[in-house]
Amino acid sequence: MSYEKKSIEEFCELVASNQPAPGGGAVGGVVGALASALVEMVANLTVGKKKYEEWEAEMEEVIERMEAFRKKMYTILNRDIEVFTKVMECYKLPNTSDEEKAYRKEKLQDALKEAADVAFELCRLTSELSVDVIEVAKHGNKNLFSDAQAACELCRAAFNIGKANVNVNLKLIEDEEFKSNLLNELAELEAKIKYNLEVIEDFS
Amino acid sequence: MSYEKKSIEEFCELVASNQPAPGGGAVGGVVGALASALVEMVANLTVGKKKYEEWEAEMEEVIERMEAFRKKMYTILNRDIEVFTKVMECYKLPNTSDEEKAYRKEKLQDALKEAADVAFELCRLTSELSVDVIEVAKHGNKNLFSDAQAACELCRAAFNIGKANVNVNLKLIEDEEFKSNLLNELAELEAKIKYNLEVIEDFS
Repeated sequence: MSYEKKSIEEFCELVASNQPAPGGGAVGGVVGALASALVEMVANLTVGKKKYEEWEAEMEEVIERMEAFRKKMYTILNRDIEVFTKVMECYKLPNTSDEEKAYRKEKLQDALKEAADVAFELCRLTSELSVDVIEVAKHGNKNLFSDAQAACELCRAAFNIGKANVNVNLKLIEDEEFKSNLLNELAELEAKIKYNLEVIEDFS
Repeated sequence: MSYEKKSIEEFCELVASNQPAPGGGAVGGVVGALASALVEMVANLTVGKKKYEEWEAEMEEVIERMEAFRKKMYTILNRDIEVFTKVMECYKLPNTSDEEKAYRKEKLQDALKEAADVAFELCRLTSELSVDVIEVAKHGNKNLFSDAQAACELCRAAFNIGKANVNVNLKLIEDEEFKSNLLNELAELEAKIKYNLEVIEDFS
């Protein structure tokens, strides 16, 4: 299922329903895609303008990266729904005999790790995106600065959604090494995105 | 045109293109709709559960409000594109004779005020939404707390997008009374949403 093919209205109705998926993580993927679309618009309305010709090559690169980036966000959107559904299915597995319990636990731990990985990937990608948000805020068409600001807001929001979902899954994961690795990497990404997105205010 | 009928993918492509609309303001409307969908999901997965029966009536009310709220967000989405296009058209009006200049200026000032009003409406509505975000974060199903957090992130982001767009338009508006009224009201809304969304951390 490619949820990016659904209309905005239909997707919102699916989120709003009494089904737990699509939920916050999938919405985070959509928000990341919207952020990259705004970045691309600013770059598109910068290229070909005399005033900004110094940054022409950079803007062309941003446009190319954003096209690819959006596809990655759609993967997050669809994967999040998939892995979340997998976690839910594990909870329905039989849980009476010792054998059943052990099997269920193993399956559940694997599914939770997958879910944490997808949420982490949303963080990794939005942290990467923040570099391009800065690029268009700094060197892009100044008439579109409020669109760069909007991209900044969405980039931060999508990162924080990913972070909340990483943490939710980590609470249930028992593999301490997996947990501490993910938390360390997450802290690094957070420092990077915070630095990048705070800098944007200086360009207004 | 009802842009909420477009697929997520198509809408992102329209934003990303070298056309200035849809831009940040329209995206803000979509993000507000996504936030309200998440709030509704939490409420939908709270009703009918023994553990939360004390808040059943409140959650039913949240669900009803969110249905209506989403429609208001789609109005923002479509109005933003409309008024932005109107502003762009004013810039194309003839601007040589004194008469032309006066006519163009009047039309442009009117269009800018309309654009500022739509952006302000996004702020007003998301500030209103923050009350329901708090409601589901506080009394909703605890298993969905990360979805309430996601709604919180998106509510804040959509408000800030509206605020940036109010300010962009105000910079070009000459009616000082209009400006100071809007800025005063905006400051009130901002205080309200900040208070509401900071409080959410206490419920985790």
